[in-house]
Amino acid sequence: MLIVMKPNATQAQIEAVSEKIRSLGLTPHAIPGAQRVAIGITGNKGALDGGLFESMPGVADTIRVSQPFKLVSREVKAEDSILDVGGARLGGQAIAVIAGPCSVESKDQLLEAAHGVKLHGATFLRGGAFKPRTSPYEFQGLGEEGLKLLALAREATGLKVVTEVMDPDDLPMCLDYADVLQIGARNMQNFSLLRKLGAVKKPILLKRGPSATIREFLMAAEYILASGNYQVALCERGIRTFETMTRNTLDLNAVPVLKSLSHLPVVVDPSHGIGLRKHVPAMARAGIAAGADAVIVEVHPRPDQALSDGHQSLAIPEFGELMQQVRIIASALGRAPRLDGPQV
Amino acid sequence: MLIVMKPNATQAQIEAVSEKIRSLGLTPHAIPGAQRVAIGITGNKGALDGGLFESMPGVADTIRVSQPFKLVSREVKAEDSILDVGGARLGGQAIAVIAGPCSVESKDQLLEAAHGVKLHGATFLRGGAFKPRTSPYEFQGLGEEGLKLLALAREATGLKVVTEVMDPDDLPMCLDYADVLQIGARNMQNFSLLRKLGAVKKPILLKRGPSATIREFLMAAEYILASGNYQVALCERGIRTFETMTRNTLDLNAVPVLKSLSHLPVVVDPSHGIGLRKHVPAMARAGIAAGADAVIVEVHPRPDQALSDGHQSLAIPEFGELMQQVRIIASALGRAPRLDGPQV
Amino acid sequence: MLIVMKPNATQAQIEAVSEKIRSLGLTPHAIPGAQRVAIGITGNKGALDGGLFESMPGVADTIRVSQPFKLVSREVKAEDSILDVGGARLGGQAIAVIAGPCSVESKDQLLEAAHGVKLHGATFLRGGAFKPRTSPYEFQGLGEEGLKLLALAREATGLKVVTEVMDPDDLPMCLDYADVLQIGARNMQNFSLLRKLGAVKKPILLKRGPSATIREFLMAAEYILASGNYQVALCERGIRTFETMTRNTLDLNAVPVLKSLSHLPVVVDPSHGIGLRKHVPAMARAGIAAGADAVIVEVHPRPDQALSDGHQSLAIPEFGELMQQVRIIASALGRAPRLDGPQV
Amino acid sequence: MLIVMKPNATQAQIEAVSEKIRSLGLTPHAIPGAQRVAIGITGNKGALDGGLFESMPGVADTIRVSQPFKLVSREVKAEDSILDVGGARLGGQAIAVIAGPCSVESKDQLLEAAHGVKLHGATFLRGGAFKPRTSPYEFQGLGEEGLKLLALAREATGLKVVTEVMDPDDLPMCLDYADVLQIGARNMQNFSLLRKLGAVKKPILLKRGPSATIREFLMAAEYILASGNYQVALCERGIRTFETMTRNTLDLNAVPVLKSLSHLPVVVDPSHGIGLRKHVPAMARAGIAAGADAVIVEVHPRPDQALSDGHQSLAIPEFGELMQQVRIIASALGRAPRLDGPQV
Repeated sequence: MLIVMKPNATQAQIEAVSEKIRSLGLTPHAIPGAQRVAIGITGNKGALDGGLFESMPGVADTIRVSQPFKLVSREVKAEDSILDVGGARLGGQAIAVIAGPCSVESKDQLLEAAHGVKLHGATFLRGGAFKPRTSPYEFQGLGEEGLKLLALAREATGLKVVTEVMDPDDLPMCLDYADVLQIGARNMQNFSLLRKLGAVKKPILLKRGPSATIREFLMAAEYILASGNYQVALCERGIRTFETMTRNTLDLNAVPVLKSLSHLPVVVDPSHGIGLRKHVPAMARAGIAAGADAVIVEVHPRPDQALSDGHQSLAIPEFGELMQQVRIIASALGRAPRLDGPQV
Repeated sequence: MLIVMKPNATQAQIEAVSEKIRSLGLTPHAIPGAQRVAIGITGNKGALDGGLFESMPGVADTIRVSQPFKLVSREVKAEDSILDVGGARLGGQAIAVIAGPCSVESKDQLLEAAHGVKLHGATFLRGGAFKPRTSPYEFQGLGEEGLKLLALAREATGLKVVTEVMDPDDLPMCLDYADVLQIGARNMQNFSLLRKLGAVKKPILLKRGPSATIREFLMAAEYILASGNYQVALCERGIRTFETMTRNTLDLNAVPVLKSLSHLPVVVDPSHGIGLRKHVPAMARAGIAAGADAVIVEVHPRPDQALSDGHQSLAIPEFGELMQQVRIIASALGRAPRLDGPQV
Repeated sequence: MLIVMKPNATQAQIEAVSEKIRSLGLTPHAIPGAQRVAIGITGNKGALDGGLFESMPGVADTIRVSQPFKLVSREVKAEDSILDVGGARLGGQAIAVIAGPCSVESKDQLLEAAHGVKLHGATFLRGGAFKPRTSPYEFQGLGEEGLKLLALAREATGLKVVTEVMDPDDLPMCLDYADVLQIGARNMQNFSLLRKLGAVKKPILLKRGPSATIREFLMAAEYILASGNYQVALCERGIRTFETMTRNTLDLNAVPVLKSLSHLPVVVDPSHGIGLRKHVPAMARAGIAAGADAVIVEVHPRPDQALSDGHQSLAIPEFGELMQQVRIIASALGRAPRLDGPQV
Repeated sequence: MLIVMKPNATQAQIEAVSEKIRSLGLTPHAIPGAQRVAIGITGNKGALDGGLFESMPGVADTIRVSQPFKLVSREVKAEDSILDVGGARLGGQAIAVIAGPCSVESKDQLLEAAHGVKLHGATFLRGGAFKPRTSPYEFQGLGEEGLKLLALAREATGLKVVTEVMDPDDLPMCLDYADVLQIGARNMQNFSLLRKLGAVKKPILLKRGPSATIREFLMAAEYILASGNYQVALCERGIRTFETMTRNTLDLNAVPVLKSLSHLPVVVDPSHGIGLRKHVPAMARAGIAAGADAVIVEVHPRPDQALSDGHQSLAIPEFGELMQQVRIIASALGRAPRLDGPQV
């Protein structure tokens, strides 16, 4: 159930509706839109009677939400959500680019990468301090030292920092250093972690699990919104199929489907998606052409020496070429105002 | 093994090398390129000794082919192959668009579709006269009557006709009417049919099987080339995955991989790929952005009355909008000279 | 629609009902059961009115068939179908074992294999004369020479011959030599071939395609029955998944599902299914425990010298051990009367 | 690297080798076997020189471990591991059966289920107090109240309690009540949780992720062993494929592969695997026939009223019939001594 308030509804009217919802043992979610506030209701088992609310002051309409996902859906919020990350935006008309190394390895490596991607037009820096690795014997990341280096790189470049949190115990520490928290594909259905993100005041980049359906992906995001954090971006990073020539199968079909079902920004990760350095630019182009709002790309000053994912990381000049390609497609679609040149 | 002839090699020198190959019990495949002719060799069990050919007049070099697919590979032919279909081209710099109904249903339906797609810039007309249907009780196509209508539509519009052949017995009849023969996804590894296409003098549009790896797809094309027909285009039309919101998962990762491994033109089928009418244009855009040479799209004058695939067919005005999108991306990539306006 | 005749219905009454069906432009399929004949109807677009038939002499009942597959369904025929192959049975209470080499390679190889599998209790000999191979450059089978050797092996051992037909042109030749025609996984939806099998008077072993759903598999069988041949066995041989340690993923879930939906016998192919010699016996045991009526196993006198599939073929003594395992499980389930000892 | 001690090696000699390993900055893992102790080494980047250890007293041999998984591998420990859960065993010659409801719903429901499954021969009681649900709006389990009910049911029946832990914060509480901790499929690569299980003194039932390869599954178990807890059982519960008639595809191929690669016990979950009540017994039979050491089955006193997974839960009499089937197969394989009758 969604209660749509009139454009001129007062805060007191909104609060009165919320209170009425609470009095029924349910949870209200006030969602501000461009024109009006809508109030989502969760916690009900069956359908609610709209008549309970329709005569309250300030209420314009009540709408049954037909999808199992509610707060993430277009039904609840028709306009695209835009995440504001300290001035840098993710979502909306301009294409955002997130770039940087798979893992933070050293101060030199990270600063070199950060300056390089900034030069070519990225606005977000990615880098892992905590790395989910298939084997317990592989490099697991620098931990807090890595986070400190990310903060240093932000200071040096102005780029906003995106980094993965794996362990709820690390959440406070990650929040101290990061601008956007990434939830990795393997944790997409780590529901206890998702719920803890509800209390977080920073945006979340949620990656699709390698065998998650689009519906499950939206439901995972719904966990975060239902817990109180509406700042979520959805990242398609490749699903697992029978194909072995590519690392994963970047599922660009998900892009228009997600955009039509949800108001959340959609990010595409061509690096993990296809997993082959030379084909990353083609998939970045295709992702934007499919309608994505942002791309996230692995860039390393010396890919051949990378401690992880070197085979799919771009060298900085290659990233420069990718940005050229991204600009061409984004411009063609009228989506590239802030990408029109190196920005040193 | 590939024998690269000198740019000025004579026809007699080429024939002498071919004869030498035959004398070893093997099969020569002379492949003309922009600069020089290369001669592929098939039929050998192990590696051949290049020394057998290197001293022959006109021979520039011998190259070991490292991939299991040979005649389709870039190693054997570096330049993009372009299919010439009675003047209409598939492959090369310009993006080709193939459009039309899933099934030929009637004269009116087909002519309306043909004129509509022609108006908006398509150069090829698709339409099925023999339909592979999951159920024996579903509409199986009009057969020869459908082929005749396709020929009529060609006469009326100048569009080249692409139609599927399922049964080797129908091959002569299909050849009488069609300009390009389509092999459907379910027949991608119907090796006896593939071999029969080697003797055909018309181009083949080979669709990727729903669970075929890229390597298997290229090997299926190799069957046709090895049997003597080098006029083949590769069509990605969606693979089968766990996702159920989309009909198939259009695997755009395959596009740059195929383009880098093979010289054959690559076509993308967003209609079957995503299977949802409203998302077909996004996937067509993405396919071209990924590097495809052509798109094939289902268009029906009245999709809701279609006997098959209506839910994924575009109405003619929707196709016009798709063409706008295609032009925008193709132009951005410098690939759209022949698509710049309605062509009545 | 299914018309169930009374147990004592006469042939004339059955014919009268069939004629009435034909008069409506539809096709009757008289399906004899243990107690009574049922007449399936195909060709209708919507639901038929049962009242058209209910008052006809000999008619006991009319039943709406709820599944898209009809003639293969348990609704149409409740009892298990048993294929009678010149006295050898496939389906029913006893477990049948089909064994032999992937490809027929030579007289010695085949006779050695045939005598070996006969000794250990197989009743059917498998062997490919026409081989569907991913690459056009791999061994494609001995063709008619292979068929002749199979006939020779039958004469020598009394085993019934199961062999694959790929090309409709080879159908008459295969029928001359084989007792059961196998349709390979890649041809499961080669509908023009399936339809031609309707006119064949020999049983068909239809393999499930690597990405065919259970429903599609049943619909493929339906093509054969609807074309007039009711002697079909369904063979699960592994589906394609993301797992790479095994060749395919033998989907034993399909066994109880198929058995509950269809009256046709179900065969399991552990050799292709798991593709690893040492695990073939475990999967054969599991297949029978899941409810399969038969297993088909690759056996070669010298697997390491096999021209195809050697890594998954059992040597003859290994097959003997597999048969021990099969007997143990089959006996436990009360299904193994004819497998209780070497039968030289 | 694995150091195999002599059968008569003293504790001091084992400790001396362990100390030597630590002095190299690496981690020793002493793994007791039936005949001798082996010491696994982890933490090394490249190959170690066996000569460093071969002359030490008590050392019999040094072995290079060829697989990426080490402590879980048969190379490190040839004999089957058996988990001892307060006298109840998981692994080894007898087949163990774990049964109970998907979710703990109430005292009556749980006690009824527990007495029912005990009566028919189960030795472990399953039941979820914390439920991972796709939607945040679905029943999430009773939490600690559910754990208390499980402890009550253990007291009443003597069954050992198996329950899922999702959140590291709940670990101490779960340890207070449970005998075996289950890690659900969605958390199989929740590496921070896996590492925390290393310090736990209770056995872990690790479920395979729906798109995890067998190698990834073993690597996830390796995380737990490498962190110090060697009491792990591996549970195959179905992978995600394109098939939609079954909930998942129970991958019984994984059973013999896991048993040959690893010494850990293998459990099969036919309830989640096929997800259809009437086919659970067939898949339980097949799982044991494939070589599994245990089955885990959902049982509910009134499946149609279950708050979760009712469609795949067996009623208690159905579970009794399943146990009959399990006994038949287990007995045939010589694996069923403790299952030979109701045990009230």
